[in-house]
Amino acid sequence: MAPVKSISSVADALDAPRTVSALTAPEQYAIAGVRLASACAGFSAANRPDLALIELATGSSTSLLTTRNTMVAAPVQVARAHWQQQGAQALEQPGYWLVNALNANSATGAKGLQNARLCCSQLADLAQVAAESVLPFSTGVIGTPLDMPKLLPQLPVLFDGLSDSGWLACARAIMTTDTEPKLSSKYLEIGGQPIRLTGVAKGVAMLNPNMATTLCFTATDAGVEPSVLHRMHQRVLDGTINRISIDGDTSTNDCSALAATGRGAQLRRASELQALEEVLTELYAELAEAMIRDAEGAQHVIEVRVEGGASTEVCRLVADTVANSVLLKACLSASEPNWGRVLMAIGNSTSRVDFDQVSVWLGDVLAFDRGQPAATYTEEAGFSALDVPRQLIRIDLGQGTATDYALTSDLTQEYVRLNSEYRT
Amino acid sequence: MAPVKSISSVADALDAPRTVSALTAPEQYAIAGVRLASACAGFSAANRPDLALIELATGSSTSLLTTRNTMVAAPVQVARAHWQQQGAQALEQPGYWLVNALNANSATGAKGLQNARLCCSQLADLAQVAAESVLPFSTGVIGTPLDMPKLLPQLPVLFDGLSDSGWLACARAIMTTDTEPKLSSKYLEIGGQPIRLTGVAKGVAMLNPNMATTLCFTATDAGVEPSVLHRMHQRVLDGTINRISIDGDTSTNDCSALAATGRGAQLRRASELQALEEVLTELYAELAEAMIRDAEGAQHVIEVRVEGGASTEVCRLVADTVANSVLLKACLSASEPNWGRVLMAIGNSTSRVDFDQVSVWLGDVLAFDRGQPAATYTEEAGFSALDVPRQLIRIDLGQGTATDYALTSDLTQEYVRLNSEYRT
Repeated sequence: MAPVKSISSVADALDAPRTVSALTAPEQYAIAGVRLASACAGFSAANRPDLALIELATGSSTSLLTTRNTMVAAPVQVARAHWQQQGAQALEQPGYWLVNALNANSATGAKGLQNARLCCSQLADLAQVAAESVLPFSTGVIGTPLDMPKLLPQLPVLFDGLSDSGWLACARAIMTTDTEPKLSSKYLEIGGQPIRLTGVAKGVAMLNPNMATTLCFTATDAGVEPSVLHRMHQRVLDGTINRISIDGDTSTNDCSALAATGRGAQLRRASELQALEEVLTELYAELAEAMIRDAEGAQHVIEVRVEGGASTEVCRLVADTVANSVLLKACLSASEPNWGRVLMAIGNSTSRVDFDQVSVWLGDVLAFDRGQPAATYTEEAGFSALDVPRQLIRIDLGQGTATDYALTSDLTQEYVRLNSEYRT
Repeated sequence: MAPVKSISSVADALDAPRTVSALTAPEQYAIAGVRLASACAGFSAANRPDLALIELATGSSTSLLTTRNTMVAAPVQVARAHWQQQGAQALEQPGYWLVNALNANSATGAKGLQNARLCCSQLADLAQVAAESVLPFSTGVIGTPLDMPKLLPQLPVLFDGLSDSGWLACARAIMTTDTEPKLSSKYLEIGGQPIRLTGVAKGVAMLNPNMATTLCFTATDAGVEPSVLHRMHQRVLDGTINRISIDGDTSTNDCSALAATGRGAQLRRASELQALEEVLTELYAELAEAMIRDAEGAQHVIEVRVEGGASTEVCRLVADTVANSVLLKACLSASEPNWGRVLMAIGNSTSRVDFDQVSVWLGDVLAFDRGQPAATYTEEAGFSALDVPRQLIRIDLGQGTATDYALTSDLTQEYVRLNSEYRT
């Protein structure tokens, strides 16, 4: 029997332009088997929440995907090791994702590793679990030691504060320069059984995920075998969060963690898993788009859609190169229809393109028509097509039927200002 | 006998910070066998010179290196074909480099090729040479047809205006958003025989040359075999202009042309050619640094020096990735000592780095010491080291003895402003 799928009003309420804080029904995005808490270590003068803890019930399947940057932050090294020690099995005791914002604990040497491990062991003592049941995550400034006297006293506060309604507070606590929390929640039914999914993420620069995102934590109450969940996680990231880039820089701390608590429907049939994967993809795509929308200094979301490729690989190369062209992104901040820079970027991406077959549209406006400037194109039409909050650059390579896309943001003077004043 | 080499006062007068227009002795950088002219087609409302012509005497050896962008502008396609038709021999009749600024004649389809060829054939008729004796070069806006009614009437003006003192005017005529002309001249003696070299170039964005520069035209009066000159040209570019990047974008029009007229000393011995190559390298390095200094919106020149590599290839990967990190370049605009972003960029460049062996200096200030934050480092010292017009980021990979470097500029709000208002 084919699964019946329906997306709840929670998802609809999260559609752009949304204010997540307008959500007033935490019970709608609670996930059975998951409890959350946040606290304030006081890493910033603003004294905002900067710690989060996510508890996963015994029996949960978990998956962890981390940065491909060779420079791996201390918490990511520890999280990888602990997750591998848990093995490819469901959790035999409660698991914990411990997150701090405002300090990446990266490039902090042996002391950094020691600090990450100490956080895990102290929390494990509180929870009476093994240290490898705790995965640590950090995001923020690189190269500064964690302030342990501020952090450690908050671990009991976190542990005692766990509740199933803590998702939004958690989304807030993991923010760095994000201006709004990023949360997405989905509901579907498979064969009459309800399934919920909720995820939180933070951006918003050094964001060119490769294998993983900045920080992203997602859970569902469905029951899915660990190895099946892990492969699903890889495919979903590959098509969503790995398709976004703000500045082409991959962080040393990127992680995406996914759990299936198994407190709800047990999914084993291919059609059921496919239905879950589709909704999980929608959830991650929403988080990805929220990150781009909140990119540092961004005024426009830019979708680069590549069609007619000989292979997905070529389409991806073209989409990524166009989406990371500093020159193009600078002119798109003023909705400048400088489509020549799109061609320049395509030419820089691969030698496997024949420009006599290439066409480029700005929104719906054809600018370059199989090797020639389009006869019907006008500057006015090009500008109008780009003078929208979500700009579309569409490229037809004229080679085949493969497609791919990339999402990015424009490069603004505000991005430069923010990134030159991050620490001072 | 080892060659005696001495650099003339012309070279000294060109040292940074220099104003090329202060040069008052054009005879110092004239090259026997080369005549130049400039003219105004009126491509811009400012009615500034935007055309240049360089004539090379019969018997000259020439070398042409062009962009590696797959999207090749019409003039570059024609210049490549014409240069190849001339064969790997010395010119049998006078040769011409015809340059226009303010319009790249790129992405202009069949009409663009036709226009580039028409420019060549009309100039060839005036000069009574074959059309393939003329190489066309263009730089400026992509995707707009050349205004031939404005350009063609200026060809006789250019041809009649040829003189050996036209180098500086030529440097001015090929400018796009450059704020100053870029010219370097060198003098050396080999075995008592004088040799002169002079080159002009233009920048100043979409500048990540690969195989060639934006536009660069250089000549010497030395006599060098064509094939020897071509290989020398490749090595010199590889170590100078191919080591600079402003925004990681490679133009569709990049070209470097080099001529040896043979009116002066004939060089055949390895030691003589080596002496010429060293001075030619100095000349190109000066032009490269002048381009970075004049980069759009740049407030700082940034040198990324990588030492201790297992191979030059690894050093180059690291240098290029660090030099193209948008996040790092944004913080360097404020002399922000965010050395964590240097490590992040190193980690994105290659997997062949062991961070426990890596050290990073800001200027002379050690910030990261073989895997650990340097105990002696302070933010104040880091800021002071970067609060200079020419910033140095020095990286020791701790692997071997290979080295390489990259030159770039910082990313400023002014860069974004300039590139979002280029055409409107």
